[in-house]
Amino acid sequence: MGKIKENIDLDQIGEFGLIRLLTENIKLKNKSSLLGVGDDAAILDMKGKKTVVTTDLLTEGIHFNLVYTPLRHLGYKAVIVNLSDIYAMNAVPTQILISLALSSKFSTEMVQELYEGIQLACSMYHVDLVGGDTSSSMTGLNISITAIGAASDDKLVYRSGAGSNEFICVTGDLGAAYMGLQILEREKHIYDKNSTSQPDLSGYEYVLERQLKPEVRASIITALDKNDIKPTSMIDISDGLTSDLLHLCDASETGCKIFADKIPIAAETRKAAEEMNLEPVTISINGGEDYELLFTSTVNNFDKLTSIPGISIIGHMTNKEEGKHLVMPDGNYLEIQSMGWNSLRGKR
Amino acid sequence: MGKIKENIDLDQIGEFGLIRLLTENIKLKNKSSLLGVGDDAAILDMKGKKTVVTTDLLTEGIHFNLVYTPLRHLGYKAVIVNLSDIYAMNAVPTQILISLALSSKFSTEMVQELYEGIQLACSMYHVDLVGGDTSSSMTGLNISITAIGAASDDKLVYRSGAGSNEFICVTGDLGAAYMGLQILEREKHIYDKNSTSQPDLSGYEYVLERQLKPEVRASIITALDKNDIKPTSMIDISDGLTSDLLHLCDASETGCKIFADKIPIAAETRKAAEEMNLEPVTISINGGEDYELLFTSTVNNFDKLTSIPGISIIGHMTNKEEGKHLVMPDGNYLEIQSMGWNSLRGKR
Repeated sequence: MGKIKENIDLDQIGEFGLIRLLTENIKLKNKSSLLGVGDDAAILDMKGKKTVVTTDLLTEGIHFNLVYTPLRHLGYKAVIVNLSDIYAMNAVPTQILISLALSSKFSTEMVQELYEGIQLACSMYHVDLVGGDTSSSMTGLNISITAIGAASDDKLVYRSGAGSNEFICVTGDLGAAYMGLQILEREKHIYDKNSTSQPDLSGYEYVLERQLKPEVRASIITALDKNDIKPTSMIDISDGLTSDLLHLCDASETGCKIFADKIPIAAETRKAAEEMNLEPVTISINGGEDYELLFTSTVNNFDKLTSIPGISIIGHMTNKEEGKHLVMPDGNYLEIQSMGWNSLRGKR
Repeated sequence: MGKIKENIDLDQIGEFGLIRLLTENIKLKNKSSLLGVGDDAAILDMKGKKTVVTTDLLTEGIHFNLVYTPLRHLGYKAVIVNLSDIYAMNAVPTQILISLALSSKFSTEMVQELYEGIQLACSMYHVDLVGGDTSSSMTGLNISITAIGAASDDKLVYRSGAGSNEFICVTGDLGAAYMGLQILEREKHIYDKNSTSQPDLSGYEYVLERQLKPEVRASIITALDKNDIKPTSMIDISDGLTSDLLHLCDASETGCKIFADKIPIAAETRKAAEEMNLEPVTISINGGEDYELLFTSTVNNFDKLTSIPGISIIGHMTNKEEGKHLVMPDGNYLEIQSMGWNSLRGKR
């Protein structure tokens, strides 16, 4: 990307000029990327592997708030959200296409910042940017990303493969992204009331980073593969643990039992939650935007699973008839109902 | 698609409910569509063919105006715009993914109408809807479509393959979609001034249909293939003939010479243009949204090209040094400069 830092007006540079500026230094890295930006369509060659494809549309005011979201982070996160869906199929992401609709408040410099984040994510995860579309919007920023990946037939993992008595596992820890959002909203609220106050974000670095610049657990996909573990079912946690676990149960026709005290919660998340009078377990099972992997595995993999850092066994699948339950530390059973993210109901 | 016609509130039905309602009756038709809606990503198998992929983001107020655009037509057109890019690579479209961001003014019934248009286009062009995303927007409707197609290596046609002295050909006729938009804008303007007046659209059916419900010239791609003609370069006319011809010239490093009196213009387009004091040739070379194919071919295909209905030879490529010209009926040469659609400069 050109390092032009002047505030060039988008109206002056035009659509083709902007696309040229944003894409002129893109180099294709993957062998499967035969042709990138510059023709009517991109051309890929998956060489006998299956093509895995997913898309997401992020809308200003619904999925992000530019008041506290740096554009670089937003670009990075927009890519991550999509790569997460590719990894959740146990596939490897290879290409993305990105479309932007920009309102008149956006300068060329701002679009370049967004693209720097996009290209950083592409670079970190070895993905090629092969196409897209740039145009105007009446209000706000819209970002649409399509991610494409490849996997051989025998590697693909669906939501529907889990059996009863299999372990339920999650990667990393949960609830941090949700707490990051609460902290940002709290500070925004204080600032809205008194614009001379400065936001106090120190001590919240971990939860803020999880909200603003999440990562995908690509390393765990690799570790599972090296240990000859193919999950029986898998999904990424975007809507919240319980909501996404219900998807696995529905698709696999199983019940489930997870244990509250097995759910991985970072100390920083717990601290932030308690400070705001929120129950750490509740926000960790319902929070969403974790982009951790939720998967099931047969019990004979116990030794291997517990030897891989960053994997927690939080419970097990059951027969469908046994229902779906969260077991509390006092032994009480709570029925699991989806309470996660529903973007049609607007901002949380 | 379910034929539920009650106005179910989107807020009540929720994101998952809406997706279920819109996608429950989708049946995959193409062999390359292994898995559609319902997991983290769709799975495709191009079986040794190359994968061709393109994406477009359509924004309310910029790309369409719901005051005069029926939702069914909008859904149909949104798909066509993308399939057009796949055909322009001489590939066959096989799948689409569609993301919607909906403002609160949209009812479930309205979204279903939009989907009826989307599914009609999929059905007409034998394309599978395999994935997408549905969420809210603060204002307006955003539609993002990714289209995927397949082609064997030897069939693919790029923008860059034209040589000097080759024919420049277009399919169908040009300028009609632009005139359709002018008529719609005129009637809207009259209605805005006097809301008791009824729009008078009779006699404009052809240009209105070309604007509101365009088609792609898939049959000509088939006819060219049957006649063993592989275009040397190709693009679809979305930004306007001159703008898209300049793309072919730039990519192929050629000049060009096209003749004003060879440009195909429908009688209805000519009539509408003259009525509004517009020059038919000008609107036909600059109008845009034609979704016709612009391609080049070697001169030894003359007999075959002229035998295929719906193809017009409008000029020929030249050496780059000779420049890019439009030859007027009086023999005058005009230099071709891009004057087409630039969506960053807002609505035309």
